[in-house]
Amino acid sequence: MHENTLSENLAETFKEVSAMKNYGEVASYIPELQLVDADKFGVCLTSIDDSSCGQGDCNERFSIQSIAKVLSLTLAFKHLGRSCWERVDVEPAGTSFNSLVHLEYESGIPRNPFINSGALVVSDMLVSLLKDPKKEFLEFVRLLAKDDSIDYDDKTAASEYAEGYRNFAVINFLRSFGNIENDVEEVLHFYFHLCSIKMNCTQLSRTFLFLAHGGKDPISGERILTRSQSKRVNAIMMTCGFYDEAGEFAYEVGLPGKSGVGGGIVAVNPGSYSIAVWSPKLNPQGNSYRGMKFLEKFTTKTGHSIF
Amino acid sequence: MHENTLSENLAETFKEVSAMKNYGEVASYIPELQLVDADKFGVCLTSIDDSSCGQGDCNERFSIQSIAKVLSLTLAFKHLGRSCWERVDVEPAGTSFNSLVHLEYESGIPRNPFINSGALVVSDMLVSLLKDPKKEFLEFVRLLAKDDSIDYDDKTAASEYAEGYRNFAVINFLRSFGNIENDVEEVLHFYFHLCSIKMNCTQLSRTFLFLAHGGKDPISGERILTRSQSKRVNAIMMTCGFYDEAGEFAYEVGLPGKSGVGGGIVAVNPGSYSIAVWSPKLNPQGNSYRGMKFLEKFTTKTGHSIF
Amino acid sequence: MHENTLSENLAETFKEVSAMKNYGEVASYIPELQLVDADKFGVCLTSIDDSSCGQGDCNERFSIQSIAKVLSLTLAFKHLGRSCWERVDVEPAGTSFNSLVHLEYESGIPRNPFINSGALVVSDMLVSLLKDPKKEFLEFVRLLAKDDSIDYDDKTAASEYAEGYRNFAVINFLRSFGNIENDVEEVLHFYFHLCSIKMNCTQLSRTFLFLAHGGKDPISGERILTRSQSKRVNAIMMTCGFYDEAGEFAYEVGLPGKSGVGGGIVAVNPGSYSIAVWSPKLNPQGNSYRGMKFLEKFTTKTGHSIF
Amino acid sequence: MHENTLSENLAETFKEVSAMKNYGEVASYIPELQLVDADKFGVCLTSIDDSSCGQGDCNERFSIQSIAKVLSLTLAFKHLGRSCWERVDVEPAGTSFNSLVHLEYESGIPRNPFINSGALVVSDMLVSLLKDPKKEFLEFVRLLAKDDSIDYDDKTAASEYAEGYRNFAVINFLRSFGNIENDVEEVLHFYFHLCSIKMNCTQLSRTFLFLAHGGKDPISGERILTRSQSKRVNAIMMTCGFYDEAGEFAYEVGLPGKSGVGGGIVAVNPGSYSIAVWSPKLNPQGNSYRGMKFLEKFTTKTGHSIF
Repeated sequence: MHENTLSENLAETFKEVSAMKNYGEVASYIPELQLVDADKFGVCLTSIDDSSCGQGDCNERFSIQSIAKVLSLTLAFKHLGRSCWERVDVEPAGTSFNSLVHLEYESGIPRNPFINSGALVVSDMLVSLLKDPKKEFLEFVRLLAKDDSIDYDDKTAASEYAEGYRNFAVINFLRSFGNIENDVEEVLHFYFHLCSIKMNCTQLSRTFLFLAHGGKDPISGERILTRSQSKRVNAIMMTCGFYDEAGEFAYEVGLPGKSGVGGGIVAVNPGSYSIAVWSPKLNPQGNSYRGMKFLEKFTTKTGHSIF
Repeated sequence: MHENTLSENLAETFKEVSAMKNYGEVASYIPELQLVDADKFGVCLTSIDDSSCGQGDCNERFSIQSIAKVLSLTLAFKHLGRSCWERVDVEPAGTSFNSLVHLEYESGIPRNPFINSGALVVSDMLVSLLKDPKKEFLEFVRLLAKDDSIDYDDKTAASEYAEGYRNFAVINFLRSFGNIENDVEEVLHFYFHLCSIKMNCTQLSRTFLFLAHGGKDPISGERILTRSQSKRVNAIMMTCGFYDEAGEFAYEVGLPGKSGVGGGIVAVNPGSYSIAVWSPKLNPQGNSYRGMKFLEKFTTKTGHSIF
Repeated sequence: MHENTLSENLAETFKEVSAMKNYGEVASYIPELQLVDADKFGVCLTSIDDSSCGQGDCNERFSIQSIAKVLSLTLAFKHLGRSCWERVDVEPAGTSFNSLVHLEYESGIPRNPFINSGALVVSDMLVSLLKDPKKEFLEFVRLLAKDDSIDYDDKTAASEYAEGYRNFAVINFLRSFGNIENDVEEVLHFYFHLCSIKMNCTQLSRTFLFLAHGGKDPISGERILTRSQSKRVNAIMMTCGFYDEAGEFAYEVGLPGKSGVGGGIVAVNPGSYSIAVWSPKLNPQGNSYRGMKFLEKFTTKTGHSIF
Repeated sequence: MHENTLSENLAETFKEVSAMKNYGEVASYIPELQLVDADKFGVCLTSIDDSSCGQGDCNERFSIQSIAKVLSLTLAFKHLGRSCWERVDVEPAGTSFNSLVHLEYESGIPRNPFINSGALVVSDMLVSLLKDPKKEFLEFVRLLAKDDSIDYDDKTAASEYAEGYRNFAVINFLRSFGNIENDVEEVLHFYFHLCSIKMNCTQLSRTFLFLAHGGKDPISGERILTRSQSKRVNAIMMTCGFYDEAGEFAYEVGLPGKSGVGGGIVAVNPGSYSIAVWSPKLNPQGNSYRGMKFLEKFTTKTGHSIF
């Protein structure tokens, strides 16, 4: 049976990767990320037919960090449609995720919504659009996850705020080009909060399920994005979802996805499932070492790939 | 019936785009490219079930230019396997296709095999590997196309050679980092020839069919690449196939593909078909204006997308 | 007589340049700079023998802006000696004065103390060193100028603060590399104030006289810098004093100097005199159009040049 | 007596630096440079009154390399006047001497005549201007040096040619922007020859004497450059003469000068003397370690500096 096979493949791959040596470093730039147990490892796959299977620490919550950028983009895109591309581009950055170099040569239009500068512009769009951005964004995420227990982690957000000189630099640089409309402190406050959201793999795979089903929640039937918009968010994840390793991920895994420095990765197999994996040790490019390994092996074993 | 629908959709989209104003400029850096009739427009789709349908100037040959980079990569990858990634990376460049900037910061390892520097390194691999590179490469292309009439255009190659100062610059720069093994003139001679190959849309879509079928020619049954290698070539086309417009293409079309300054574009719908379109006027990013428009409209109309 | 000749040459050159068409644009990024009469033009030369001669609007005060960076560097260098070069380099930047690009590649060490990033680091040094930075810096400038009427312009400083997103970006970027020790708001507040100082050409040429006399005020006999330090400040002005036009100034004028967007330029002829010129219209590189013209003609006429 | 003092200072400084440990690496990219004895050390000062004093290996010839760029610029400037600045700029590069980055952003106009790209453009000017460039250039250098034994070193030139992939890259890049008029091989042949000239310190200081005397040979009375042109060449040496260490040299030495990877440095004290020093070990910026140390100590001891 297909589900069994998927579930068996998941379990088998999980076992294989668990048996391998775990390399890399836990993100250390804020204390909240460093406190986590470095050898945690969990994975959960949720199918569009509402079945799901998990392994390991799949019910332990972690900081989703940059993965939240897909959700803020989704909400902005839902509200603004194509007009959001006037303020942020959709091209791969080709350099490390904090780079200000491109911004300077491209007059304050970030290369894509998943580098920090682009995510700050998207956050600014939401601050302009929403009455109570923090409250409404959280409601949106809870709606996607079908889980009201999901919340911000104020301590993580506060730590980011205290150490986020680069982000202060980036947002003021954007402001100098006129590409930030609101008070920079307000936008940063919102941005640091959305990155601080904690979820477990089960919740995270459920949250991204609409992107595996053409923008519509396959279980509730709610439409989150149009079919065309959903395809576009997946395309941006494919080309820009992994910092300076987007090509490597496309090459090794072959599915659109997004990583975060908390050690989480979520990937989408359009028409079939979404899958979340979490392991805190990061490779030199800032992506979960075991997360990448797991997804490579899993898609190779199952033959799943969009290519 | 599905095939009819595909054919009808193709015809309809072709008619729509033909009726629109044609923008852009024909490539002018070598005389051979400029001589072409700017309003030529052809398209051909070949399915893995061996059916095909064409429209307009689909049987008129044009210079495939950079599209040939996919074929040279395929041949090098077939011979060398993963070891070819020691000399060329798989990440999007994020800058214009001739840029030497990245090369300088990355010590002579090109960002990917589809920017000029990367294609020159791949050409150098083939010059090292093959006894008679020009002859053997042409045989390989004829095998893929199942058409022995396909040939180099010596005049185009000679023009490139006469005006190709940038490519002379790039290859010597690579040589200074030790990433060219052969005589630079020999590699350039080979490179300019492979870009000079002429095909029509029918031949081009046939040539790329193996990438829509997991690396195996669906008609002859010959295996060109392993399933995994085929997936990888598609992934590289998706992230790096359109110069500084790869993200835009992924976003608007949603299929892996490759363009050339001769006005050709080829795209692959894995598991289903490959499609070639040709129209010489280029948009400011160097991709066929009508080719891009056609593929956007066609994939939107049919709902085809890998996402 | 030599002094007469100098004075006559000054008057003659002034007349010539006044008769020429005045090109360029007054700096417009803050209202205070834009309010000034665009055709103001004044010049004053002060010799180390205490004689001075002025022309035109030489007694009207203007915002010295970046010229103040030489004075803050002087005060920091006086206190810290060579150790200040651990946090800022002395090489020409080769790019526009706001560029963050170099900072990124050089890990937060600004190229020189006269680009904004370097001047912010110098300001941070003074905030660390001085008990009451604003008060003590102003006392130092008044001491150099022998004029207690010199003061900050709070309105100009406040405007800079309101519009200075680039500087907020730069200082946070520096902070992210650990090269700012104090609160960023405090450093910026100090920096914007020192740039807001108003002087006229007479005061400005008097203020810089110590650099024409080996670091010692030739009239009061006070030592401001050691001979060696004075030579070094002049060397930095020569190689880095004119944004992206330092080479042009060295080439056309042949004296060390520093410009500001308020339209002022000060230059030093070591062993002889200092000279200040003011005219608000700026050339595309951000240096006073008439100021550059005047100094070119004056040094050509007199044969003065350090080369 | 002044001359005695100068001579004594020279001898004393030479002794001091000879006693210090000698750091750095001899240039190794071509065999001819590597064959030299790493601890050679010579210096010679020639005054405009025709006296000269030398120390150590001041009569042993070495490859002047980039120092020749000042002589080719002088010859081109003499023939073309200001019009040579249409093809090469006079601004410090702010990056390493081989960089292609600036060229790309500035459309093929090199930043200054002393980086390789700029020197290649100057060589191209001379190839256009002169009937027999190699012969006429050598005659010009012999005229300046008053020594007909000075010659090219064909072996060094041939080695450069064999290994000069970077220079092949640069000149083809310039050609792609239309800033090379002649056959690239011919220009490179000329360029590698002029860099291969061998001189000793005595000859080198004599050759540069005209730049210490306003462009006129103080002994023969021949005018090489106008006063204004001479001042300009000195200004360019001051801002661009030491690769990425021009600011450091201006700061530590305070005289215009030029270095070469053969370990030679020549500096000019306008109105007084020219001085040449040679020691093959290079610091990480590519300038002679002992040469820099010697000039720092000598100018500090004598108080000579243009600032």
